[in-house]
Amino acid sequence: MKPSNTSTKSSALVADWEALQRIFIRPESDAAKEALLKYMEQILFGLHDFLQKNVGITEEISLKALSDNFTVTAISPHPEKKLADVITDLIKNIAPHAVNVASPYFIGHMTSAIPFFMVHLKTIVAALNQNVVKLETSKVVSIVEKQVLAKIHRLIYKKSLSFYDRHVQNTRTTLGAFVEGGTTANLTALWVARNTVFPPKEGFSGVEEEGLSAAYKAYGIERCVILVSRRGHYSLRKAGGILGIGNQNVIPIDVDAHHRIDLDCLKTEIDKINLTRNTRLIAVIGIAGTTETGSVDPLRQIGEICKENHTHFHVDAAWGGAVLLSDKYKHLLDGIELADSVTIDGHKQFYMPMSCGMIYLNNPEKMNVIAYHANYVNRPGSVDLGIKSLAGSREANSLILDSALKIMGSKGYALLLDHGIELARKLADEINRRASFELIMPPELNIIIYRLCPEKYHEVLSGEDSEQKKNINKKLNAINRIVQRIQREAGRSFVSRTTLNFDSTPENEIIVLRCALMNPMTDMNVLNDILDEQEEIYNTRFSPDSGSI
Amino acid sequence: MKPSNTSTKSSALVADWEALQRIFIRPESDAAKEALLKYMEQILFGLHDFLQKNVGITEEISLKALSDNFTVTAISPHPEKKLADVITDLIKNIAPHAVNVASPYFIGHMTSAIPFFMVHLKTIVAALNQNVVKLETSKVVSIVEKQVLAKIHRLIYKKSLSFYDRHVQNTRTTLGAFVEGGTTANLTALWVARNTVFPPKEGFSGVEEEGLSAAYKAYGIERCVILVSRRGHYSLRKAGGILGIGNQNVIPIDVDAHHRIDLDCLKTEIDKINLTRNTRLIAVIGIAGTTETGSVDPLRQIGEICKENHTHFHVDAAWGGAVLLSDKYKHLLDGIELADSVTIDGHKQFYMPMSCGMIYLNNPEKMNVIAYHANYVNRPGSVDLGIKSLAGSREANSLILDSALKIMGSKGYALLLDHGIELARKLADEINRRASFELIMPPELNIIIYRLCPEKYHEVLSGEDSEQKKNINKKLNAINRIVQRIQREAGRSFVSRTTLNFDSTPENEIIVLRCALMNPMTDMNVLNDILDEQEEIYNTRFSPDSGSI
Repeated sequence: MKPSNTSTKSSALVADWEALQRIFIRPESDAAKEALLKYMEQILFGLHDFLQKNVGITEEISLKALSDNFTVTAISPHPEKKLADVITDLIKNIAPHAVNVASPYFIGHMTSAIPFFMVHLKTIVAALNQNVVKLETSKVVSIVEKQVLAKIHRLIYKKSLSFYDRHVQNTRTTLGAFVEGGTTANLTALWVARNTVFPPKEGFSGVEEEGLSAAYKAYGIERCVILVSRRGHYSLRKAGGILGIGNQNVIPIDVDAHHRIDLDCLKTEIDKINLTRNTRLIAVIGIAGTTETGSVDPLRQIGEICKENHTHFHVDAAWGGAVLLSDKYKHLLDGIELADSVTIDGHKQFYMPMSCGMIYLNNPEKMNVIAYHANYVNRPGSVDLGIKSLAGSREANSLILDSALKIMGSKGYALLLDHGIELARKLADEINRRASFELIMPPELNIIIYRLCPEKYHEVLSGEDSEQKKNINKKLNAINRIVQRIQREAGRSFVSRTTLNFDSTPENEIIVLRCALMNPMTDMNVLNDILDEQEEIYNTRFSPDSGSI
Repeated sequence: MKPSNTSTKSSALVADWEALQRIFIRPESDAAKEALLKYMEQILFGLHDFLQKNVGITEEISLKALSDNFTVTAISPHPEKKLADVITDLIKNIAPHAVNVASPYFIGHMTSAIPFFMVHLKTIVAALNQNVVKLETSKVVSIVEKQVLAKIHRLIYKKSLSFYDRHVQNTRTTLGAFVEGGTTANLTALWVARNTVFPPKEGFSGVEEEGLSAAYKAYGIERCVILVSRRGHYSLRKAGGILGIGNQNVIPIDVDAHHRIDLDCLKTEIDKINLTRNTRLIAVIGIAGTTETGSVDPLRQIGEICKENHTHFHVDAAWGGAVLLSDKYKHLLDGIELADSVTIDGHKQFYMPMSCGMIYLNNPEKMNVIAYHANYVNRPGSVDLGIKSLAGSREANSLILDSALKIMGSKGYALLLDHGIELARKLADEINRRASFELIMPPELNIIIYRLCPEKYHEVLSGEDSEQKKNINKKLNAINRIVQRIQREAGRSFVSRTTLNFDSTPENEIIVLRCALMNPMTDMNVLNDILDEQEEIYNTRFSPDSGSI
């Protein structure tokens, strides 16, 4: 981890201009090339073996011990080491302390294995170094981007062929946009929704120009709100904060037993808002795959409620969007086509490398409310994709998605997606079979939540005594927190934990274990290993002799 | 460009689960690997030759003709072609119609050549696929990120060693953050500034929670404003719009003859604001390298003015920030250490691949006003970098910057930066020497603006008759617009154009040609070729015989 002191100081590398030009365009020597070639071949053609060999799943070294080695803050005037040595260092000293998110035993987060060819595609994108903010620095890549956006738009909205013919390469309309990730996609959607609610009118030039306070005055309101279930991703609250709406005005709606938005609660809240003269509803959000539970809100019903109430319907399908590629399971997202806007993450179930998000708009004119121009680029009427985009300079991730769709086909993706969903169901069965676990909810997509729950507590938990239940939940919270930590630190596997809240009382929160199953190499053997390990940790740590609880 | 029909449909690739697992982890066959290896070697070890051979600088094909080939919007159920064929397609059919931003003749935009090893580094980052939003998906990479942020912070702010020892790996403080690009960096800075101006107080829980309208009420104001010179990047207006402040409240201040903010105008505007009881100044922005002219605002003086007025001082050094690495020219950014926040782009003069921005904060507690937590990650007090970040999931670009600093050393970077600045001066001399050009302003950094201006107009332009001058400027605008377009379409070289505005009257705008000189392979031979070509286009297109003007 420490800068190795054995490598020769090679100030010669930058001693003169010619040397610099050399290092700019090729390795400094044949020997250096040899060393690099060896690593790059491993990375490009044996990615999964490479990661297995070089990267720990997680590891026991403490954060403190690790970070003590990274405290030098001076930039060396001369090169610290040669390129090949820097890369060797990355591989020998940095990678082992990174996290092997590609391991079949790493099932705790939405970051997982990617197909090896994704690294090739990312390499090509980096080599071309196109900047999609403008046509002058991307040309055909901007055109490919519009095409792949249309492909995914069609997957979601299934409009007519003539619709797509009209819009696929139309420089004035926008079917969607590539963004940094789901957070930016959600922010963009709500930015569009906000601006749509406060357009210019007599004596008011619009919220984007005059700001939110002026908009409230012009439209005679004092507050606007966004509704989303308690399981909404925190980026939605963040978007409320950034956009000046206030994150407390992103109002959490209670969920049902499947962690889907409770439609009655939603309707009650909307009725309340409609009765409050000074409050304006900006958007209702449906979630297609909540981060914590994988639940899918009843999208069709929410869509209909939004239509009745003339409000923007946004679907956060960052996680679940890709399921539209599966003929077998796309019905789980029924009603998504009613959405005014949809968030999808490329780096989640499209298996793209970090990081790539997308936002799609039902109405291709909708993004006009966030258009910006600059004198040196992005002139009105040009095809420059930066005109309607939160970001400025931006890499060409569309080339990766476009290529991946060609390499895999929707059926290739479907195999991956179906595997995850079906594996989650099998895991649920296994958890139900094991007496020391409790399945919190039958999985809908490929996320599953459960907890360690010794058999002796089952009865009370299914009973009526809420005080007693609270006490047991408190004990179970402690158990699950500890087991999860010990398992993570042991470094053989990784399951995450989350805290589910059901109302605003912290004492009703429960801590659960959480798996996101998207790695095709993860199977029931792996999952049984992981459950066994959890039981073993529990038995060792909480045996009657240990006296812990 | 069209999907080649000759490649075999290989539905076999996804026909079964085993085949899918194979394609996930390695090339489908040795032959495929051979083909890929050939390309990847070219890309990784002969990047600049590869681009020279495969990518047009710009090209004459019309956008219409090009986009007609990218209109299919169906996703193929089966793989359209094998991986090797998709990559061949990218290289043979897509790349040639991309833009060779690495050519020494491509000097029109801030996107340029990158050292070949940057592609290796990006490949490694993609292979590791860490997600820096949380420690659990990045571990050591989050720690490296904190370290490299401290290195650049120290370059800017030069605080004491004990300051950096205290903060470099401190999980509670934040010296800066990696973001998608300069736009997001500027947005983050102004988000911080906004929230700092409207903190919680008795009966008000802060602007982030309650929103901007409630904040204005709580603090008894009706409007807040941000000041920046007319040369401010359009992302600043966009940030004003997104944050709910209103983009018309990002007020442009006039510039002097060097396109730097006019300090008297700035002071007058601040005085005006201070007299208006209901308006609050949120931030003043200094620019260290304007996008259009490369001018650096008088940072020290702006910093002092901000201090007197107790307002946030943000420096947009997206372009110029890297100049701090040059001992010879860092004085050009004198006063940057007075900034409360600084934007720097990695993909500009740190020569990183698209896209990487950074934001730095003088006060390491400052970003607390934008902290967000989630139940499943980012728990309070953890090192998770996603807590104070606009983005959620995020790739580990810090590894690239950290490695590049080690490979190049500050002196290596300085050679590149000095080359650009000195080349701009030589080009200015050459433009002055040529009778048919007019240098608009002696370059400060490595951006230069000039225009074609036949000798016969020189006298009038330096005279006093403003009506006559306006007429000539109109003619020159037409000439420069046309010459720039013809040169771009000819495809041998690329210089951009921009429209400089000096007040709010369009008729005073002038169109200029603009070069950003950052490619070490660009030299005076190249630049003379480019000027020759412009003269030739002018002479052919606007000769007395052509009767055009």
